Amino acid sequence: MQNFDLYNPTRILFGQGRVAELGQWVPADARVLILFGGESARKNGTLDEVRAALGQRSVSEFGGIEPNPSYETLMRAVEQIKRENIDFLLAVGGGSVIDGTKFIAAAVHYEGDPMEILFTYAGNVKKAMPFGSVLTLPATGSEMNNGGVVTIKSKGAKLPFRNALLFPQFSVLDPTKTYTLPQRQLANGVVDSFVHVMEQYLTYPAGGHAQDRFAEGLLQTLIEIGPKAVETQEYEARASLMWVATLALNGLIGAGVPQDWATHMIGHELTAKYNIDHARTLAVVLPAMLQVRRAAKHAKLLQYAERVWNITGGDEEARIDAAIAKTRAFFESLELPTHLSAYDIGKDAIDALVEQLKAHGMIALGERQEITPEVSRAVLEAAL
Amino acid sequence: MQNFDLYNPTRILFGQGRVAELGQWVPADARVLILFGGESARKNGTLDEVRAALGQRSVSEFGGIEPNPSYETLMRAVEQIKRENIDFLLAVGGGSVIDGTKFIAAAVHYEGDPMEILFTYAGNVKKAMPFGSVLTLPATGSEMNNGGVVTIKSKGAKLPFRNALLFPQFSVLDPTKTYTLPQRQLANGVVDSFVHVMEQYLTYPAGGHAQDRFAEGLLQTLIEIGPKAVETQEYEARASLMWVATLALNGLIGAGVPQDWATHMIGHELTAKYNIDHARTLAVVLPAMLQVRRAAKHAKLLQYAERVWNITGGDEEARIDAAIAKTRAFFESLELPTHLSAYDIGKDAIDALVEQLKAHGMIALGERQEITPEVSRAVLEAAL
Repeated sequence: MQNFDLYNPTRILFGQGRVAELGQWVPADARVLILFGGESARKNGTLDEVRAALGQRSVSEFGGIEPNPSYETLMRAVEQIKRENIDFLLAVGGGSVIDGTKFIAAAVHYEGDPMEILFTYAGNVKKAMPFGSVLTLPATGSEMNNGGVVTIKSKGAKLPFRNALLFPQFSVLDPTKTYTLPQRQLANGVVDSFVHVMEQYLTYPAGGHAQDRFAEGLLQTLIEIGPKAVETQEYEARASLMWVATLALNGLIGAGVPQDWATHMIGHELTAKYNIDHARTLAVVLPAMLQVRRAAKHAKLLQYAERVWNITGGDEEARIDAAIAKTRAFFESLELPTHLSAYDIGKDAIDALVEQLKAHGMIALGERQEITPEVSRAVLEAAL
Repeated sequence: MQNFDLYNPTRILFGQGRVAELGQWVPADARVLILFGGESARKNGTLDEVRAALGQRSVSEFGGIEPNPSYETLMRAVEQIKRENIDFLLAVGGGSVIDGTKFIAAAVHYEGDPMEILFTYAGNVKKAMPFGSVLTLPATGSEMNNGGVVTIKSKGAKLPFRNALLFPQFSVLDPTKTYTLPQRQLANGVVDSFVHVMEQYLTYPAGGHAQDRFAEGLLQTLIEIGPKAVETQEYEARASLMWVATLALNGLIGAGVPQDWATHMIGHELTAKYNIDHARTLAVVLPAMLQVRRAAKHAKLLQYAERVWNITGGDEEARIDAAIAKTRAFFESLELPTHLSAYDIGKDAIDALVEQLKAHGMIALGERQEITPEVSRAVLEAAL
């Protein structure tokens, strides 16, 4: 096992009806800005619930944070916060809104050009506003970690950041808040969570016995409850999806083990260039990544085949083939395509994507930094 | 899934050599009291390492915290803290030292008779001293939770407590610190962790899909690496044991699911009366508890049999029998007896133990509060 630090001070308030309690965790004299995405949070009554829970506090709103939140939009919130002397942020939404809120929390106090935050992965952030979240879309895990991803539209760049000051103080996880989501977003959430786990699990054996079991348990749970969570409003399935999505990226399963994240980095370029949903880029890239990296990931692919998919027959290469096929079929069963052709992206598009990766410094990706732009090219070719 | 809160602000510093960094997490001007148990922490050099990491700070020592730490001993530390104006506590040891330090942290600021803290399960604690820990014995999970158990010798009572103010600020988990432990303590740690997981897992199905998988993963890991961790100094086995013991009782696997803890409560009476090691009481009580409660725990016992022990053949009762037998054999393989007769405790001792349970209010134990003193009697009889 590798040495690691684990620190996660976010307070989780999980379950039906918990929004009503959030006032306990916001200072009584706070001037609050509620941040959200589209108008669904207003239409389905969540904004009203949140306002009621905040009682007599001064409350403003900032709506319109888009999927793949943009620097340009978020900077408008920063201006509003300064103008209105806001001192507490409350994100109401999914990963995009919470990621955006984290960037805003850092940008308000940043000395210098806030775009630098993104170009330095937030490593130079020294102060951030306090914030909480009300999660409405289980997928990214942003509700219980200190990272995010923001797109700079003017540069066509989608950039990750992380800083110890950017944990939500609390997050309300009420599974019934997912009842009004479209199936497409729920399916995206299942795959996003699945790939988050895979990025921290499917590398090479490193003595992380408990971490491996936890990762496998999250994958098994997604396989077990994912389809039901997408197709029905069963509370138990939605609750498990919501909790798994959080556990998939709260630092726990990745502590002490190697991590990959190359699938995400290549996926980000597809989103930046073609505006494909984040999870959908992962569904395309991951199976191709496993195929191209099957030698380097050999031992873990066999473990994954056996423990997650119960594949024990046949020779080793056949078991690996079967595990990759099962992964692809799982994504397809949720109606996420696993080939670039589904998005009319052909071989002629690959040069530009590889150039984007180089331009963003993504030249030595993966758990052993072996994924050069040429390996990324091979992955994209395998994903055609 | 049940509604739950999850909050755990303890910072984990895991891995070889991490003691040297702990000075970063203690205020520079702190007056520190190092608390420890026997003299092994001094003899094996850990106290010197800790003192070196604390640099120029004022440092005192309080040694002699016994296994099953006593109120009487701990109150002497409280006096020393007041006398020396100590403002930061550093526990160096296993669960007993850390549990004791938690009680001390609460007792120093308690208004009234500190014994009340124990009789109210620490529910009335309003203020506590800050403290960290250096873990040397993986077993209890105290290094990453807010609970403890203290024995009042004058009353023959072993009482649990818990309070949100009693999380360690940090805990250093260096697996090499276990190298000097006797095999008996390591074996106790494996079983203690195993039973901690079982108390939060082996109840009834409640939609906790991920929690079940996590619990099963910890049990599987203990079965896989436990014997090696006891018999050898292999770093990977010791590291996994240390991390599993922490994860077994840091709030994670029990969040949102029913919990039992009757085995612990009955075990505490055995320790209080006969001074049997905590883990050894659990090894005796758990198999008997599963046997007596097999109807109430039917569904989970079958799941445990299949997922943890790969028992799929035979009818349901036979599978349950096999799972209980496997559990018993695992404990015995680590040289923890699973019958009271190993401690020369016979049928004639049971009346007094049942009376102790009643005297301590343990009259409706278990995940459904169904374990009356008469059920506890049946469990003790099954453990003979």
